[in-house]
Amino acid sequence: MKKLINEVDDVVSESLEGFVAAHHRTHRKVDDVNGLVLKKISNKKVSIITGGGSGHEPVFIGLTGEGMANGVALGNVFASPDPQTILEVMKAAHTDEGVLCLVINYAGDTMNFEMASELAELDGLKVETALVTDDIASAPKGQESERRGVAGLLLITKVTGAATEKGYSLAESRQLAEKANEHTRTLGIALTPCSIPGSKPNFSIKEDEFEFGMGIHGEPGIKTKKLETADEIVKDMVTALVNDLELKEGDEAVVLVNGTGATTLLELNIVYRQVATLLEKEGVLIHDSIIGSHCTSLEMAGASISILKLDDELKHLYNEPAYTSYFYKRGEQS
Amino acid sequence: MKKLINEVDDVVSESLEGFVAAHHRTHRKVDDVNGLVLKKISNKKVSIITGGGSGHEPVFIGLTGEGMANGVALGNVFASPDPQTILEVMKAAHTDEGVLCLVINYAGDTMNFEMASELAELDGLKVETALVTDDIASAPKGQESERRGVAGLLLITKVTGAATEKGYSLAESRQLAEKANEHTRTLGIALTPCSIPGSKPNFSIKEDEFEFGMGIHGEPGIKTKKLETADEIVKDMVTALVNDLELKEGDEAVVLVNGTGATTLLELNIVYRQVATLLEKEGVLIHDSIIGSHCTSLEMAGASISILKLDDELKHLYNEPAYTSYFYKRGEQS
Repeated sequence: MKKLINEVDDVVSESLEGFVAAHHRTHRKVDDVNGLVLKKISNKKVSIITGGGSGHEPVFIGLTGEGMANGVALGNVFASPDPQTILEVMKAAHTDEGVLCLVINYAGDTMNFEMASELAELDGLKVETALVTDDIASAPKGQESERRGVAGLLLITKVTGAATEKGYSLAESRQLAEKANEHTRTLGIALTPCSIPGSKPNFSIKEDEFEFGMGIHGEPGIKTKKLETADEIVKDMVTALVNDLELKEGDEAVVLVNGTGATTLLELNIVYRQVATLLEKEGVLIHDSIIGSHCTSLEMAGASISILKLDDELKHLYNEPAYTSYFYKRGEQS
Repeated sequence: MKKLINEVDDVVSESLEGFVAAHHRTHRKVDDVNGLVLKKISNKKVSIITGGGSGHEPVFIGLTGEGMANGVALGNVFASPDPQTILEVMKAAHTDEGVLCLVINYAGDTMNFEMASELAELDGLKVETALVTDDIASAPKGQESERRGVAGLLLITKVTGAATEKGYSLAESRQLAEKANEHTRTLGIALTPCSIPGSKPNFSIKEDEFEFGMGIHGEPGIKTKKLETADEIVKDMVTALVNDLELKEGDEAVVLVNGTGATTLLELNIVYRQVATLLEKEGVLIHDSIIGSHCTSLEMAGASISILKLDDELKHLYNEPAYTSYFYKRGEQS
C-alpha cells in the first residue's frame, strides 16, 4: 500500500511532530518518548491520560483537549506503547489529584500501563486505571470484562473528562469511567483490510464479503458474510447492540457512527439514517450523535456503531463542553 | 468497490436524510430536492449558500453552520446540482440582505448556479456569486480565473461567513469572497483512484507512481511521477504554492492539509510537519492550521495543501468563531 510517509520507522514520531507543530499553543511533546500532554493542566483536578498503538487516529492523539484527556502515550502502529513512554506521560500529566488512565483492553496495553503505574507509584504518583471493554464482538455477554476496547473510548473519555473538570476525586473519576464503560457498547464491520506502513495487508476479505464484528486491528469477527445492503448490515449491528445493552423504550443514548478509515461520510450518514430509524422503533431517544472517522484502522473500509446509554449523571456530564482537534461539544446552547 | 450503501440511486438522498436526522436541531432538509438549510437564519444578514456534486464530504454539507454557510445544494456523486435544486435552496436560505453563492469553478456548477440565479431574480431575490478558483494545477499563473475550485472553499467560506456575520452587505460580501479567493491557493496529489458508487474506478495510478496536481474528480494532474517520500512530494507542492501565491518573508497564512479520503491522519500530520518546516524557512508565519479530510474524493488516497495568505481584514475575519459538524473555530481565546 502506497502511503505519504518518509521512513517506515519514523512514521509515528514524525506524525507526532507534525501534530505538535500544528497544536503548539495547546500541546507539547513529552521529551524523549512518543507522548504528548496539554500545556495547561490544572493541578487541582484529576488528570486523564490514555494511549495505545498508533494507526487509529484521531484516537488516541485526538482525545486530548479541554474537557477530555490531558495526555497520550503512543506506540508504533498497532503496537502498545512501552512502559517507559507511559511513565513519562504520567509524570508530565500528573497533578496533586492523581492520574486516571483510560486503557483499552488489549494484553500489551494493560500490561504496559500496569508496569508504568507501578513505577509511577514508586515515584510517589497517585495512579488509577479504568479499562475500556466496549467491543461486543470480542467476547459473549456475561464475559464483558474480557472484551476489547474500541471506538467507545471517545464517549467514555468525554464523560470522564467532564467528571474530572467537575472536581471528581481520583476514585470517583475511576468509578465514573467504569460506569460509562458498562453503559457503552460497540460493534464493527469491515469491507476491506488495511496494511501497516511498509507492509502488505495481513488479512483479506473477499470482494463479495464483509466481516461482521471485526476488531480494530483486523482481529477476526463473529462471522464472514456475503455483502448486504447498508440497511441490512446496520440492522444486525443495532439489534446486537440493543440486546447486549438491554436498551428499552424511554432510554436515552448517545450514538457514535464511526468510520474505520476509507469509509466516506456519504456512507456513514446512510448508516446513521438506519440507526436512527431502528432506535426510534425501539423507543430509544437519541440525545446526541457523532458521525465521523474517530477511531480508525488505518485505511480499512468499514464502520462501527457505539451506543452510550445515559443516566442522569452521564447525561449531565456528556452535555459539558469539550474541545479537541477532531471533536467538540459546545455544552448546552441557548 | 464495496460500499456501505443501499441502492446506488439513493446514495445522496439517503445520506442527506441521515445528516438531517443527526442535525435536526440546527438543520432542515429543503422540500423535494437534495438541499439543506440552517433552521436559524438571520434576516438582517447576507445568507451564504454553496453546493456542487456529492462525494467530497464534508464539503459541501459540512460547510453549513454558525459563521459559515446557511445552505447547500447537492448533486449526485461528482455531478452538479440542477438549477431547480439550487433555486429551492436559494429560496429557503434567502434573507432581506440577499444570497451570496460560493461556487467552485466547474462548468456544470457555474452554469446551473447562474441559471438558478436568473430564476431567483425573476422571483425578486437578490443573488450574487463568487467563484472559487484555488487549484493551481488546473491552469497556469496568469490564467487564474480558469482554475478549478477545490479544498480552499473551506477557508473562503470561513472568512466570508464571518464577513456576513459582521454585517457586510451583499456586494461587500462578494468582494470579500473574491479577495479571499485571490489569497487562496491549493495543490493536490493522489496515490490511488476512487470509484463512484456502483462503478469501477474510472482511472488508475500505477503501484509505484502518484499524480501530482490531480483534481478532486480524478482530473489528470500536471504530471505522473514515480513515488517519492512524503517530504519530497510536499516540498514540490509547497514550492509551487509559495511561488504562485508570491508568499514572502513576514507574510501570515492559514494552512489546510487536507486528506482526500483514504489518507490516514498519521500521513496528514507528516505532511503538515514538512509544510511547517518549509514555510518557516521562507519566513512565512503560520497563523493557524487545519489538518483533516475536509474535501475528499470518495475513498481516494491523497492529499492537498491549501494556503490562505492573510491581510488584516482576512485575519480578523478568520479569527471569528465558526461551528459546523466537522470544523470549528472558537474565536480568540483568553
